[in-house]
Amino acid sequence: MTKENVQGAGEEEQQAQSKKALKKQQKEAEKAAKKAEKQAKLAAEQQETDEDDFAKDRYGICPMVQSQQKLDRALVRVQDLTPEKAEQQIWVRARIHTSRAKGKQCFLVLRHQQFTVQALLAVGERASKQMVKFAANLTKESIIDVEAVVKKVEQKIESCSQQDVELHVERIFVISQSEARLPLQLEDAVRPEGEGDEEGRATVNQDTRLDNRVIDLRTTTSQAIFRLQSGVCQLFRDTLINKGFVEIQTPKIISAASEGGANVFTVSYFKTSAYLAQSPQLYKQMCICADFDKVFCVGPVFRAEDSNTHRHLTEFVGLDIEMAFNYHYHEVIDSITDTMVQIFKGLRDRFPTEIQTVNKQYPSEPFKFLEPTLRLEYKEAVAMLKAAGVEMGDEEDLSTPNEKLLGRLVKEKYDTDFYVLDKYPLAVRPFYTMPDPNNPKYSNSYDMFMRGEEILSGAQRIHDAQLLTERAMHHSIDLEKIKAYIDSFRYGAPPHAGGGIGLERVTMLYLGLHNVRQTSMFPRDPKRLTP
Amino acid sequence: MTKENVQGAGEEEQQAQSKKALKKQQKEAEKAAKKAEKQAKLAAEQQETDEDDFAKDRYGICPMVQSQQKLDRALVRVQDLTPEKAEQQIWVRARIHTSRAKGKQCFLVLRHQQFTVQALLAVGERASKQMVKFAANLTKESIIDVEAVVKKVEQKIESCSQQDVELHVERIFVISQSEARLPLQLEDAVRPEGEGDEEGRATVNQDTRLDNRVIDLRTTTSQAIFRLQSGVCQLFRDTLINKGFVEIQTPKIISAASEGGANVFTVSYFKTSAYLAQSPQLYKQMCICADFDKVFCVGPVFRAEDSNTHRHLTEFVGLDIEMAFNYHYHEVIDSITDTMVQIFKGLRDRFPTEIQTVNKQYPSEPFKFLEPTLRLEYKEAVAMLKAAGVEMGDEEDLSTPNEKLLGRLVKEKYDTDFYVLDKYPLAVRPFYTMPDPNNPKYSNSYDMFMRGEEILSGAQRIHDAQLLTERAMHHSIDLEKIKAYIDSFRYGAPPHAGGGIGLERVTMLYLGLHNVRQTSMFPRDPKRLTP
Repeated sequence: MTKENVQGAGEEEQQAQSKKALKKQQKEAEKAAKKAEKQAKLAAEQQETDEDDFAKDRYGICPMVQSQQKLDRALVRVQDLTPEKAEQQIWVRARIHTSRAKGKQCFLVLRHQQFTVQALLAVGERASKQMVKFAANLTKESIIDVEAVVKKVEQKIESCSQQDVELHVERIFVISQSEARLPLQLEDAVRPEGEGDEEGRATVNQDTRLDNRVIDLRTTTSQAIFRLQSGVCQLFRDTLINKGFVEIQTPKIISAASEGGANVFTVSYFKTSAYLAQSPQLYKQMCICADFDKVFCVGPVFRAEDSNTHRHLTEFVGLDIEMAFNYHYHEVIDSITDTMVQIFKGLRDRFPTEIQTVNKQYPSEPFKFLEPTLRLEYKEAVAMLKAAGVEMGDEEDLSTPNEKLLGRLVKEKYDTDFYVLDKYPLAVRPFYTMPDPNNPKYSNSYDMFMRGEEILSGAQRIHDAQLLTERAMHHSIDLEKIKAYIDSFRYGAPPHAGGGIGLERVTMLYLGLHNVRQTSMFPRDPKRLTP
Repeated sequence: MTKENVQGAGEEEQQAQSKKALKKQQKEAEKAAKKAEKQAKLAAEQQETDEDDFAKDRYGICPMVQSQQKLDRALVRVQDLTPEKAEQQIWVRARIHTSRAKGKQCFLVLRHQQFTVQALLAVGERASKQMVKFAANLTKESIIDVEAVVKKVEQKIESCSQQDVELHVERIFVISQSEARLPLQLEDAVRPEGEGDEEGRATVNQDTRLDNRVIDLRTTTSQAIFRLQSGVCQLFRDTLINKGFVEIQTPKIISAASEGGANVFTVSYFKTSAYLAQSPQLYKQMCICADFDKVFCVGPVFRAEDSNTHRHLTEFVGLDIEMAFNYHYHEVIDSITDTMVQIFKGLRDRFPTEIQTVNKQYPSEPFKFLEPTLRLEYKEAVAMLKAAGVEMGDEEDLSTPNEKLLGRLVKEKYDTDFYVLDKYPLAVRPFYTMPDPNNPKYSNSYDMFMRGEEILSGAQRIHDAQLLTERAMHHSIDLEKIKAYIDSFRYGAPPHAGGGIGLERVTMLYLGLHNVRQTSMFPRDPKRLTP
């Protein structure tokens, strides 16, 4: 961290660059050379002024952290910078969020994750003119270590998360430099839609965000979304483990399409070919036949659907449940809805800040739910839609617009954003769905909805090999291909039901967002395979 | 559950069968017809004797549970059948594990998961001759509901998990019948290896097990293995969440091979092609560049290696960690080893019964570990091996036999089954590995071992785009394909390190098992894609 190190690193880099320039990538080399030149210039400038710079050991560019030493230095997190730390001398590692030079002063906003703090460098006893200039020239998004004294401020700093303190910087070292030109500006990326247009300020479109996802994920909104999503997974699992469920791992490379032949990706598998699982359906049921009784799994599912809607991805995360029951599949519905309610409560109670942060950019009403969860029959839903002027057959599937309309009707009537629709027509459900014992046109199946969009599809499954065979034949499914699955039911199988939840949809709809790509870190759709 | 229902169901089935026989699958139909015939015969026999059977409403075959009714009947679990329940009249649902008729009595062993209880039917006030005969004829593995009185026994029943009580059965109804011929016998499947040969009793070979995995998973050993494995995942996540980690979900369909071009499965992706991720490596690092600081993920990873060893699968579950550190990657090693120690302790404390159960079939020494975890340098390991007579170069990678030998040497010297090997030669590690700052032939990388086998591979990663580019070129990696990854490091990146753990290996080695297929529910290898 001394000047020698800084210079040494500069020279090494230059040498490395010259070697590299001889190699393939001309463009890459030129870019790197420019950077090296700039660094050399910076180093030279510093050297020039070294003699008359009393603060020369108080700032600089650190050599790349290569674990050269075990430094016994505690770093305080930005979020922990509160008035209790006033007058303490501390070290902080953070990014330069913004920087503004003003005469003999330089104001920085330092950021770590969702948290920001103001930092001040002023020419004086601890900082030279050169040092302030150095700080003012640092690129945004660079990561720095600063030593500073925490100072209480008289007027709240509205623009920062840490409003009651600022840092008076005494040392400043660069850990990792950012290139000067960012592919997108973080302040643009968190601007509420609409505001951009009205006041002529920019917002960032979705493709730019996703093309530069690593920058986009640094925004307060993204940090909040994905911390909350981590919470969804945790709440889902913790609730189920408390209920006596066992976590299972099911194969994603399979020999037969689990949900029929359409929409399945093909994998070349040594000398043969295989498929990517469209769901863990067949495997979680096999675990029920294997006496695990209550199982769940969290993992990727793959759908080769060539549709570019706001709620479809070709790869998403399935939160899957399967459970043996005693006498009626409503036992399972109750378990699932209770799990969802635990998730909603957990999010509300543990992530209020994250929800508020997302709402700043994407305003939405708080998510409402009832206890016990509202359960409607499909027939009732059709009647409600017909009463609202929709023309549809009794055993017709719900279109997406009708689902949304139904969501609004249910919200008006029952004041809930979450409900279950039970007893779907048999014809619109997969072959393994148990028919209704009282009406062969219907089935023991259900969907669950959040803000009018489907987040779970489930059913009582057929646990009798003979009936399952009949239904598979009725759906023209090649019995040879699902032999292992059907055979699972020949040696005693308990009645069971379950469902699959789309993680990204739950996060999106809970937060009132409008595109599932906002809740998938690296989304995959027919047009996007990268990053 | 009355006789009428039984007959009704039989007739319906016959009709359904006749229709079906006309359809494609002659073979399937014949089989089903035989079953129907048998059932009709059973029903007829019962009808014949109906007049003189006072117990006729106390037994029978239930119609398929189709959620016809919400029965308000509590079912007691087998594991809860203890002397405290003596003289209580209760209902139990369980499988018929074994059945043995003896004069006017029938002894059943009922099983639910790992738990068994003895049940007795005797001709008397509550059971007729016909009823006992009915019970005696039920097939093994069928699922039944019994109403019974719990009775304390004077002599412990050694063959059951519930040794202090037995059930005196008063009603017995079949919920789901098993076919009479099982593809494997559960008692053979839990017999310790070796015992089979000596006493002429059968054991079950691995392919038979895996071909009939649903039956094999019902054994006490399998139930214990996969409950413990569920615990590994839970302990891994809980420990990390307590440490402030965020769970992430990374895409499995990717546009470029994450670990170089070899051993990667190809997927056809609409009009183009893609790959299956060999690890979440690039994505978890991108999350670090995106300020998540400490991340983990649990998910499938895919390796197209055509090797059929005891420890390789083409699809396994990766427990992945990535973490920004302050000054030295040993901060990360310490976090990972502490996580592993928490897992070991959690398994030992929460799953003693499961460990004991597995040990009955597969005896092994208890797993030993030190606190803090032993960390050796690669050079020391090479010296130990050379001292033991192994001929190898200083910068040569460890062969599998040498790893195992090293495990034995370390166990002898330090009495631990878990240790870290630090500072691997740079040449044998992936391109993104940070070189050792003091010796360019070595690197800031490490493996972790359990009982002499590798379970984790990790390293400090290069967080500088320029050095990363150089190293990728040195490894002849097409820079165009990993552009998004390399670009992630251009806008400020913290120093970071991490590692990937193989779940199945951890379970296998903790329990002292010898094949990773034992700890994968539905294993995938070059020769196995099903079930």
